[in-house]
Amino acid sequence: MRRIKVKQLFETKQEQEVLIFAWVRTNRAQAQFGFLNVNDGSTVTNLQVVYDNTLSNFEEISKFRVGVSVEIKGKVILTPQAKQPLEIHATSVVMLGDCPEDFPIQPKRHTREFLRDVAHLRARTNLFNAVFRIRSVAAMAVHKYFQDRGYLYVHTPLITTADCEGSDQMFKITTLDMNNLPLTEDGKVDFSKDLFGKQAFITGSGQLHGETFAMAFGDIYTFGPTFRTENSNTQTHANEFWMIEPEMAFCDLEGLMDIEEEMLKSVISYVMENAKAEIDLCDQFVEKGLKEKLNNIINSKFVRISHHDVVDLLLKSNQKWEVMPSYEDDIAKEHERYITDYFNGPVFITNWPKDIKAWYMKVNPDNKTVAAVDLVVPHAGELMGGSQREEKLDVLLARMKELNVSQEEVDWYLDTRRYGGCVHSGFGMGFERLIMYLTGIENIRDAIPFPRTPKNCKY
Amino acid sequence: MRRIKVKQLFETKQEQEVLIFAWVRTNRAQAQFGFLNVNDGSTVTNLQVVYDNTLSNFEEISKFRVGVSVEIKGKVILTPQAKQPLEIHATSVVMLGDCPEDFPIQPKRHTREFLRDVAHLRARTNLFNAVFRIRSVAAMAVHKYFQDRGYLYVHTPLITTADCEGSDQMFKITTLDMNNLPLTEDGKVDFSKDLFGKQAFITGSGQLHGETFAMAFGDIYTFGPTFRTENSNTQTHANEFWMIEPEMAFCDLEGLMDIEEEMLKSVISYVMENAKAEIDLCDQFVEKGLKEKLNNIINSKFVRISHHDVVDLLLKSNQKWEVMPSYEDDIAKEHERYITDYFNGPVFITNWPKDIKAWYMKVNPDNKTVAAVDLVVPHAGELMGGSQREEKLDVLLARMKELNVSQEEVDWYLDTRRYGGCVHSGFGMGFERLIMYLTGIENIRDAIPFPRTPKNCKY
Repeated sequence: MRRIKVKQLFETKQEQEVLIFAWVRTNRAQAQFGFLNVNDGSTVTNLQVVYDNTLSNFEEISKFRVGVSVEIKGKVILTPQAKQPLEIHATSVVMLGDCPEDFPIQPKRHTREFLRDVAHLRARTNLFNAVFRIRSVAAMAVHKYFQDRGYLYVHTPLITTADCEGSDQMFKITTLDMNNLPLTEDGKVDFSKDLFGKQAFITGSGQLHGETFAMAFGDIYTFGPTFRTENSNTQTHANEFWMIEPEMAFCDLEGLMDIEEEMLKSVISYVMENAKAEIDLCDQFVEKGLKEKLNNIINSKFVRISHHDVVDLLLKSNQKWEVMPSYEDDIAKEHERYITDYFNGPVFITNWPKDIKAWYMKVNPDNKTVAAVDLVVPHAGELMGGSQREEKLDVLLARMKELNVSQEEVDWYLDTRRYGGCVHSGFGMGFERLIMYLTGIENIRDAIPFPRTPKNCKY
Repeated sequence: MRRIKVKQLFETKQEQEVLIFAWVRTNRAQAQFGFLNVNDGSTVTNLQVVYDNTLSNFEEISKFRVGVSVEIKGKVILTPQAKQPLEIHATSVVMLGDCPEDFPIQPKRHTREFLRDVAHLRARTNLFNAVFRIRSVAAMAVHKYFQDRGYLYVHTPLITTADCEGSDQMFKITTLDMNNLPLTEDGKVDFSKDLFGKQAFITGSGQLHGETFAMAFGDIYTFGPTFRTENSNTQTHANEFWMIEPEMAFCDLEGLMDIEEEMLKSVISYVMENAKAEIDLCDQFVEKGLKEKLNNIINSKFVRISHHDVVDLLLKSNQKWEVMPSYEDDIAKEHERYITDYFNGPVFITNWPKDIKAWYMKVNPDNKTVAAVDLVVPHAGELMGGSQREEKLDVLLARMKELNVSQEEVDWYLDTRRYGGCVHSGFGMGFERLIMYLTGIENIRDAIPFPRTPKNCKY
């Protein structure tokens, strides 16, 4: 007898004898027969198993509770008239692991808050089964997009001793006994005694390291966990999340936008093809119209408009703004919403005022703006942020001086401009932001398996 | 004119007009013409570009130094008689970024030690271009193996407040000012003021979290960075490395070995197919016979033998051992070498003495051994370590008590045994170990882009 996963079963739709391992989601027992709905985690769709009193342990099966793990042998019966295309007529059902009545995941509606409190169990609900399957498939979609195009996947380091990002935004790490720190003569912590001989941090970006690899491999991407110390409790902030940071040599701002647009469409298409049942579930229970939204993205041409022209539009709109749009300032959430509504689709906003953007971005000929681009999408706001990088060493050094970035800390990085430098560009995409967009989930705590937020680090 | 990558050029072998962006590796200029060897990072193989004095900037091109970035337009000429299948006859060569003579990566032999010291530039050598390309392709091979089989990729958290691994082995992280730590009344650090309200660490394994997801999805895997505080300077230790941890519900020790064997063969095949030039280079310059070694693995049937029988073999071998083999102890490096030589291939060593293995492993009926398995391979020693997990709550609790593992810290994890538990198994594979095996590289510092080891955290 062939062991098969439920997903395969639904894909092959073949009458056959099968062996299935799964967990009971519901059990409706009647006098002569009963129905088990089981799930093996391979797909969010449950499998119906019919058992009857010809089975020697019929009485026992009738009492199987929700959550019990079972071994099922039986025949696949095609049911083209029914809601599900097939069911199993069991020839044997054996309990492998019992599940007491206090099992928190019962077949009823649980609040998301409650489920966050049992993060180690919530993947056993339909909702989180779907969300985390989509997350997994989306991760593969990202890898596939870049690898198919010859990009190098580079594992940039997380531990760093360079605090060029500002050590306030980074976690400090140490192997020293924090209750008994060694001190130098002037009473400061003696980090020469620490593992790396210096104070060390967990970095919030692999971009600088990524650029050094782009100068060797042309096209590279990172995909790994990222940490921020922000003490901020919002729906979109977590202290640990995953990020993708591609970097392309010989690529300017226009080329960058081409890649961002193509990648997003490719990832969405891959997920809709490879996580059909899960997207359907989110469309039905999380965000009505999700599939239409995603299809619209695939079929739209993303608008490209400068920050200056966006502000023009906002000022001419006759809207009442909480934050007044300004040519010198960032775009507020309400502005993003207006702009994506106005264009009815994703919008690349380019050429931002240089004073509100990072030191490594390419300064435009106007000397007021930089060649940066944010992609804002309907409902979710900013999804990616990127820029062409300043490839001219003298301009970059002047910018660093202006912004008090220590040259010493990143002198190695400046070698990318000293030795065979070139026009190059890159962007960052928060992976949870993408998952929220793909599922309709509105809180980042529900888009990552075990969320870490201020005062919240269970499991 | 079509922009093309060098790898594509070699794959399509088509006479056409092309546009190429790359870096100069060598420049041999003669009176009337010259040869540039260029590399764009898409493949380790260089492309030969012929330029002659019909180009208006011929004199200038003649002086292009190693490392310069260039834009090349020209015609592809097939050269079936030559070593390389094609070359470019340039119609235009333009310098994009200059490279001074002090560029450290010159076309000569550099020691690996020197190259570690310019880790941000070493990817521009043939050797490291090959190694990190193989690393990238191998990462994709791992994802492909598991995703093709329906495994869920789960991002387990790195930040943890549970110090069940022993906090000595974990980095402590904090947002507190380490030079001015808040103290409680009894003079200890007041971690209630820290970001998570408790002392937090960076974990060294995602296994426990992974198991909770295996109970929801059946088959899962993790693939992410891992941290150890070991103050140990060897060829195989790094403080930051990447690890893969699959976990399979309804899978016993035999099933686990089937998966490990199939996965390793699948990854090797994928890498040999998708990084041909890079494997060739390693075969030629890093480990003579590498390809034969890898092919042997693909075609071998891995031996399965118990720890007890391995010790029997070692004792009967008439070898002089530095460490005497023992039924109660670990297997030393010299024993691993003997055993893989003896069987001339990879060997699964199973059923280890329980006293030297972890608390969550399945205790065998003999009550002396656990259902653990290490895969040892010729030349490299241990490549994967795994076990069937103890699914019986009472046995597991007794083991935890025996080994002083705090139940409170991992009570959530124990829910995997309380609610629909089942036979399940998992393993861990150090990704750098795999890369060393795939490339022949002998030092872990050369298998990871920016290695972090004691007293060494540059870049």
